Formats: sequence, structure tokens, C-alpha cells
Amino acid sequence: MQKLAAGIDIGGTNTRVGLVNEKGKILAKASVSTKDFQDPKNFVTVVSNKISELRTPGSKLTGIGIGAPNGNFFRGTIEFAPNLDWKGVIPMAKYFSQAMKCRSILTNDAKAAALGEKLFGGAKKMNDFIFITLGTGLGSGIVANGALVYGQDGFAGELGHVTIEKNGRLCGCGRHGCLEQYCSATGIIKTYLEKNPNAGKSIDSRFIFERARAGEKEALDAFNYTGDVLGAALANSVAYTRPEAIFLFGGLAQSGKLIFEPTIRSFENNLLGIYRNKVKILPSKLPEDDAAILGAASLIFASAK
Amino acid sequence: MQKLAAGIDIGGTNTRVGLVNEKGKILAKASVSTKDFQDPKNFVTVVSNKISELRTPGSKLTGIGIGAPNGNFFRGTIEFAPNLDWKGVIPMAKYFSQAMKCRSILTNDAKAAALGEKLFGGAKKMNDFIFITLGTGLGSGIVANGALVYGQDGFAGELGHVTIEKNGRLCGCGRHGCLEQYCSATGIIKTYLEKNPNAGKSIDSRFIFERARAGEKEALDAFNYTGDVLGAALANSVAYTRPEAIFLFGGLAQSGKLIFEPTIRSFENNLLGIYRNKVKILPSKLPEDDAAILGAASLIFASAK
Repeated sequence: MQKLAAGIDIGGTNTRVGLVNEKGKILAKASVSTKDFQDPKNFVTVVSNKISELRTPGSKLTGIGIGAPNGNFFRGTIEFAPNLDWKGVIPMAKYFSQAMKCRSILTNDAKAAALGEKLFGGAKKMNDFIFITLGTGLGSGIVANGALVYGQDGFAGELGHVTIEKNGRLCGCGRHGCLEQYCSATGIIKTYLEKNPNAGKSIDSRFIFERARAGEKEALDAFNYTGDVLGAALANSVAYTRPEAIFLFGGLAQSGKLIFEPTIRSFENNLLGIYRNKVKILPSKLPEDDAAILGAASLIFASAK
Repeated sequence: MQKLAAGIDIGGTNTRVGLVNEKGKILAKASVSTKDFQDPKNFVTVVSNKISELRTPGSKLTGIGIGAPNGNFFRGTIEFAPNLDWKGVIPMAKYFSQAMKCRSILTNDAKAAALGEKLFGGAKKMNDFIFITLGTGLGSGIVANGALVYGQDGFAGELGHVTIEKNGRLCGCGRHGCLEQYCSATGIIKTYLEKNPNAGKSIDSRFIFERARAGEKEALDAFNYTGDVLGAALANSVAYTRPEAIFLFGGLAQSGKLIFEPTIRSFENNLLGIYRNKVKILPSKLPEDDAAILGAASLIFASAK
């Protein structure tokens, strides 16, 4: 009987769910609008029905993996997620276990994707790597000694909130100079607007990418600055866990050499001598659209091993 | 039969060796002058003879643990240690295994001491903590998911070489702004001399400690600045592995509240909100004089479990 895991990616706007086999193939998927549900229990009922509908006869559902913002692995809860309508602490893993009569594991979306990279992406043979998502913010998952680092309470791996500049840009967390205010879609927009204040506040990172590809100096400068900052920060991260590779994922990472070239140059320039030319910075091998589902499902496959 | 491990602490000047039981008690110890030996094989012969002399009848030697500067855990080698006379790569673990006919495990001194803290010190029940030695430089060992983080090649946990100030103080590694140029005996001397350039270049950190205890403003300022920098750096380190506690060890850590108060204040001020008031900064519970021997011996006891 084919063993499947359900992978659920809970986002502020949409929730996507897929049935994944042990080889990382998504056999079926569906989505619901997260914002339609004021009550998380109704949400669980509807998503559970979707999973049941997606299943084909003769398959076995071995568990449900969930990636969610502010997801706590140890408690299976979503805790005070600012971009979800559900307030407080939501025991989402328990809800799904009860609804589907199977085990359910939850963690934050970046950590789930890091595990997806290990099971189904470019980190299959790696025991030590760092996974970075460059989205609206900067998320991360650290794998050391072959296992995700959760720390004492599940909230390890918040590299987006490493302070890289004292008295730097104000962050949503209330502090100043956090890495994600420089290296993320939000960050590169701020950088671009500093160089080009007349560009208009409604621009997005795609716009900057198109301008850079067209050769606009300000846009190229914004990418180079973003890479400078990211490379220096990643060089510091090597001193913690000495990864074999660092994977970049997300919209900004898809800008190809516009972001990779300045990042790798700054990374090598800033590395301690014993690390130089040894640590790879690589694009994630997870498919952009399905990474979150694959990552969530890999929570189940990884824990079964 | 009582099971013992030998713990060997190889230092640039002296090498200390002790026989340790499973409870972390040192039953006997001796030392030799490292500098007397141009040939590491002669060194191994003499140290092995010391171990044999220290043994009492009826005890079983289960292994030899070695802490050494630039020690590589995976290869059992000392590699290009700048403060030892032996050049290149020395297969020290293999030499001791052959001489003593038992297994031998080597790692760098700070990582060995971190393991000592877990087996015999203040981290007995902790699966996630960071151990910092504030000596001439700043060394560290990171424990995550209950195990020391070695990284791909054994050189994880070099927090002394995290860059904390772009274009900052020149470090022995050739880069600028490394943490250990601020937070170590070397660092606090530099800070004090910046504030008090007439103090004379031959002062040591003990001198600054005595001046601070006597209430001298420049010395107190030097401790406060050191704590400011250390606290901010440690706040960043929490975003990596979310430890339960951070242990401070070494001469500077023995300055008590002169260093702990400003460090903890800066640490809490710089922490991301979700971490505040949750992570302890504690003095190591290892005895200063015997920590290196206990740490080295714990390499054997930890791997037997």
C-alpha cells in the first residue's frame, strides 16, 4: 500500500494542502482561503474534508505535516501569528489529529521547508546546512548533526532577527537593524527607495528585478548592497554551525546571479580563513510553488525514519 | 571495577593530565611542559607513562580524551596550531591510541569544556546551551539537540570570530572586528588602553579587575563596554540555536558581577521579544583549574553513552 503524508501550508491568505508520497511527489493538491475562517475548528473541518477527497483508494495516510507562521514544533501550536486572524495560541496539530485520526506534526514554515530540502531537495546527503527563505521577511531553518535545530522552546533559527547594524532600520519586531530589514523583498525595496526616493512607495521586488535586468544602476546597486549584507551575515552564521551549504529560497533567490554573485563575493570576503572556499551558497532545489507542501509533508517522513 | 577516563589538556606551555571517574572526580593528575618536546611522539610517550603511573590497581582505563588548540574531532588531529611548536597536522589521537592500546578522542579545548559542563557542571539536564570561554581569546562550544555541534569539518562554534564591528579592531585571524578582540582578556586590555592610554602596555586583565574593584572609572567603563558588546553578541547567538542557558567560563568570567551585570543587561536589551527573560547567562560550574581535564575526559564518557 502506498504511504502518503498530507502537507498543509497555512498562509495568511491561502492554505494549500497536498498528498505527498515518500519520493516527494505531490499526487494531488487543493487550496482554501484561510481568511474565510474566523474559527480555526471550522478551518480544520474543511481542510480535513479536502484531504479525504484527495485520497485515492489503496493509499495509506501516515500523518499530517503542517507548516505555519509562528508554528511551535514542541507544542504543535500556532502562537500569536500576526498575519493570521486567529488570536492567541491555536493547538492546530491536535485539531488535525482529532479530525483525521492520525498523527500530526506542526512547525514553522521555514523549518518545514528546510526539512523538505533535506528529504526531497538539494540537501539529501547533508547533515549540516542552513536554509534561508528570502520572502517578505527572512526565515531560516538550521540542520546540525542531521537534525533540525529547534532549541529549548522550538524558536531557534530566527536569523531574520539577527542584528546586523546597531541603530539600523526599524524592524517589525520593534528592534533596529535586523537582517530581514535588509535581505528580503521588504529589505531590497527599502534599499532601492533610499537610492531612488522618487520611485514611488508602491513598487515591489519584481519591479526592482526588472529594472536591474534592464541595467538600471540604482536597481543593480540595490541587489549588490543586499548581497553585500547577506554575504557578511551568512559568513557569521558559518562560525556557529559550519554548514556544508547554505540554501537560498524564495522570490529574491530566484533573481539568479543578480543576488548570488554579490552574496557569494561578500561571503567569501568575510569568512574566517579556515572556512574559505569550503561552504557552498546554493539555490534551493525545491520547486517554488510546492516547497511549503513538500516541507510540511517531510515532517512526517522525517520522523518515521 | 572502577571505570576511568584519562583527560589530557594540551596547552602551549603545559600539558595537564588527570584520571577521572564517571562522576567527574579527578583521582590523580600530573603535568608536563609541552615546550620540552620538539617531537610529538616523544611527548606522547612521556604523557602515556604519566597516565600509567597515575593508575591504581583495579581500575579500568576506558579511553583517553584530549582537548587541544585547533583540535579536529573528526580527524583526531591538531591542525596548524599557532601556539604549539608542532607544525602542520599532528594525528595526536592516533598516537595515544597506539601508545595506550585504547580508544582516544580529541577535540578543541572549548568544545571539550562544553561537554564537561554537560556531564559534570551546570548543564547536566540541558540539551541546548552555549559554552563560552573568556581567556586570551574567546572560545565556544554549542550543544543543540543534546549533542555538540561540530559542523561538516569539526570547526563549528568559532564565536570568537563572529564579526561584530565592520572595520573594527584587527584580529589575529587577519580580519577586523572579531568578537574576541572585544570580549576576552586581550579585548578588555585593548578597551582599557583606549580609555587610559598611559596605563602602560604591560598591564593584564587582572590589573583592570583590581582597578575596577577599587572603583576606578576607566576600569569600570572597560568592564561595562565589554559586557555591552558581549551581551549584544550573545543575543544574536540565541537567534541561531535558542539555548536554555549560556555559560561563561575563564578568567574574565571570574570577575563576577563586574562582567555579568553589564552582559546580562545588554543581552536582555538586545534580545528578540520572544526570547526575553527566558535564556540564562550563568557562570560555569566547572572548577577553573580542572575544567580542561574534566572536559577532555568527558569526551570518553559522553561517547560511551
